[in-house]
Amino acid sequence: MKSQKGKRPGASAVASRYILMPDQANPYGTAFGGAIVAWMDMTAAMAAQRHCGREVVTVSIESLSFKEPIYLGDHVVLKARVDYVGRTSLEVGVEVSRENPYTGRKVIATTGHLTFVALDENKKPVPVPPILPVTKQEKERYQNAARRAKERKERVKKGEAF
Amino acid sequence: MKSQKGKRPGASAVASRYILMPDQANPYGTAFGGAIVAWMDMTAAMAAQRHCGREVVTVSIESLSFKEPIYLGDHVVLKARVDYVGRTSLEVGVEVSRENPYTGRKVIATTGHLTFVALDENKKPVPVPPILPVTKQEKERYQNAARRAKERKERVKKGEAF
Amino acid sequence: MKSQKGKRPGASAVASRYILMPDQANPYGTAFGGAIVAWMDMTAAMAAQRHCGREVVTVSIESLSFKEPIYLGDHVVLKARVDYVGRTSLEVGVEVSRENPYTGRKVIATTGHLTFVALDENKKPVPVPPILPVTKQEKERYQNAARRAKERKERVKKGEAF
Amino acid sequence: MKSQKGKRPGASAVASRYILMPDQANPYGTAFGGAIVAWMDMTAAMAAQRHCGREVVTVSIESLSFKEPIYLGDHVVLKARVDYVGRTSLEVGVEVSRENPYTGRKVIATTGHLTFVALDENKKPVPVPPILPVTKQEKERYQNAARRAKERKERVKKGEAF
Amino acid sequence: MKSQKGKRPGASAVASRYILMPDQANPYGTAFGGAIVAWMDMTAAMAAQRHCGREVVTVSIESLSFKEPIYLGDHVVLKARVDYVGRTSLEVGVEVSRENPYTGRKVIATTGHLTFVALDENKKPVPVPPILPVTKQEKERYQNAARRAKERKERVKKGEAF
Amino acid sequence: MKSQKGKRPGASAVASRYILMPDQANPYGTAFGGAIVAWMDMTAAMAAQRHCGREVVTVSIESLSFKEPIYLGDHVVLKARVDYVGRTSLEVGVEVSRENPYTGRKVIATTGHLTFVALDENKKPVPVPPILPVTKQEKERYQNAARRAKERKERVKKGEAF
Repeated sequence: MKSQKGKRPGASAVASRYILMPDQANPYGTAFGGAIVAWMDMTAAMAAQRHCGREVVTVSIESLSFKEPIYLGDHVVLKARVDYVGRTSLEVGVEVSRENPYTGRKVIATTGHLTFVALDENKKPVPVPPILPVTKQEKERYQNAARRAKERKERVKKGEAF
Repeated sequence: MKSQKGKRPGASAVASRYILMPDQANPYGTAFGGAIVAWMDMTAAMAAQRHCGREVVTVSIESLSFKEPIYLGDHVVLKARVDYVGRTSLEVGVEVSRENPYTGRKVIATTGHLTFVALDENKKPVPVPPILPVTKQEKERYQNAARRAKERKERVKKGEAF
Repeated sequence: MKSQKGKRPGASAVASRYILMPDQANPYGTAFGGAIVAWMDMTAAMAAQRHCGREVVTVSIESLSFKEPIYLGDHVVLKARVDYVGRTSLEVGVEVSRENPYTGRKVIATTGHLTFVALDENKKPVPVPPILPVTKQEKERYQNAARRAKERKERVKKGEAF
Repeated sequence: MKSQKGKRPGASAVASRYILMPDQANPYGTAFGGAIVAWMDMTAAMAAQRHCGREVVTVSIESLSFKEPIYLGDHVVLKARVDYVGRTSLEVGVEVSRENPYTGRKVIATTGHLTFVALDENKKPVPVPPILPVTKQEKERYQNAARRAKERKERVKKGEAF
Repeated sequence: MKSQKGKRPGASAVASRYILMPDQANPYGTAFGGAIVAWMDMTAAMAAQRHCGREVVTVSIESLSFKEPIYLGDHVVLKARVDYVGRTSLEVGVEVSRENPYTGRKVIATTGHLTFVALDENKKPVPVPPILPVTKQEKERYQNAARRAKERKERVKKGEAF
Repeated sequence: MKSQKGKRPGASAVASRYILMPDQANPYGTAFGGAIVAWMDMTAAMAAQRHCGREVVTVSIESLSFKEPIYLGDHVVLKARVDYVGRTSLEVGVEVSRENPYTGRKVIATTGHLTFVALDENKKPVPVPPILPVTKQEKERYQNAARRAKERKERVKKGEAF
């Protein structure tokens, strides 16, 4: 059974943690959106590389929501895990929390879904090992990501004007 | 007529241009996805500020597609314009091209849709001036953005598990 | 006629736009002069590359004037265009404005003249296509730049002590 | 019993993970030592803040060893935990590994010991909650750190010429 | 005698030294012109602050010449000294050398003249202490800088079109 | 006599000077410890390269003490000199002062000892030219560094648990 050879999402999941420093803040004193997305992309790429054992490139970002601001000095805690695998692509979910450095109080600040394509030595797309969702939550995430992947393909096929 | 007081997309549209430098490239020699999104966020924010005459914060990124790699030394050309306005939010479309610095050959590399909320002096959401789509393309963009805004709201209402 | 094969200044002119972020400000809360010049150099280099279709290197900066401060959060708007062409060198004029992000009020903040040399594949200076000033302003800029180029050469010839 | 009110090292331990990017590499293609230490300092500071629930400042770095180079594209995995607590100071051990992004092979690259002082609202040193080493390894680390703290104090007392 | 109360150029002169790192190099592997000027501005500002004992702002850059490229890994050696003092302004000469890190061979790479204005507590221009050129070279530099200051004023008065 | 062929510490000593800028400050408005160490590493590496005439890599940092905070806008003055030479390694002492930009008042802020190994063309450790301490202070520094080198070796031999 092919799916048996797949990997569990937890096997490649990664976490990271930063302090929000002045050079990543906008002139209003909160995190610059672009800096947050840059960290999300790097963290998601690490999970994707670990799942594939391959070089990966970002191909899309979907449903990225900034829910809460992050303040100077906050701990920025990122978690990324593979939610879904297509043939040569895979979707990674990233959750960013801000944590108060003194009280430890933690709030989800940003979430998003990044899709990567795995590349072989000649920079050509190459099949990705299957993912093995087991828990109820993992299966739900898989279904949601599969739907997003389908919508994305249809959008491309229709040639939706940008 | 309220829409008459609105602004045309062109009135707040902005453009920017960079050279892709080594510190924005990933270890494979092409643009780091996060650096591109950081520039898109800044460029889109400038269009949103110009339309609203207000401080804005990024609230979401939708359908951001990396279509073509950008290489070290390429000119990175960004264009951003307001496509849609809700009550206190507005969606900005950003198109990123890579331009060969010597031949001038230009290819669309990345496109995406960023939503901002306008804030008043107390950092509270505040109504945004209407947008006035006139050309066929502007109207099409308005419709597509309105659909994305609706889907986003439904997603939030359903409380879709992340 | 050789000059007919030249290019108009507008053909290679470029524009760029940034938000002044905290990591480009000095400890007094205004733009760090060095950051402004770094952007001017990059923007001017892009105009020079487009005119020459070649790799270029900066060889001098003349009459660069900081007229007005730029504040955190301001839009920094840069315009660069080729003003003058020598044999293997070309002078680019760069104008930097600060634009209030909410009112759109714009003030010229910095202007300067950067000279580049075009290089061939072996990094040797190579002739540059002629420039074709047509309007009164383009001709005036050409004359002023020609004078600066002449003064620069004389200074080098005299071996003026640094 | 005072030590009962203390915290276990695991309660404040933190982990972080980056990709080594070109702007943190030296001209030889491996991690710039200074960039590694900057990350170690930030990661250690986060563990110290979580233990103290206070602002902290770095006061010393001891026995920091670069054992293995880190290459462009490697995952840089940092782990920090509080090893020892004095009256107003605490020592944090940081371990940096490089992980091959494709094979997952991991090697310890750098280790070091950073001491912080906790500050109150007036930026004055303030007592730190005790640490509660329980396992054999935690006790050993505590002893080693206590010895380093003692040597550091003696060095200061003697006024060792720099 | 007023000039006796002035300071010698050497009293405020400063020197600095860096390694040229990948994030300051352009895609051709040599120093990005903008990075060099940013360092020159910072080094010159330090000499100006030391001469005036005041906050200073850069008002112009004149005759900045890039004579030799600087390569990745080179030592970048900067020297800045006050050459001339007007009423509220002062001109600083900066010399940038590249030094081979292994042989110590040193070549002048870039030179330039930066003018600053001293500011009082209300950010208004304020008189600057006189400079006291004594050696033949100091006097020559003073004369050259005085001529540049005069030309600059005339250019401003004429309202030379940019 | 072998030591006669050695070099004096002053022959390779280097100095550098920066302004502390916002992107090197932590959220409390003082220098980020990591930024200071990054500068110390670069400055020490330059002294080591000049002594060896070779590529060097940092292998350890010992007894690095942050004695005084450095504030935004302060001049950061670094001095590095070779204190001790082993067979293929050498220890460099670095002293960092903060200097008030207006009064010139200078205070030692941070000191530390960095050990480097010299590498040949194949990246293998290679013998380093001897150092020639002559003054009382140079000899004292040599003795202290020799002791630290011995302690470091013993620590490695014992395999002290990290």
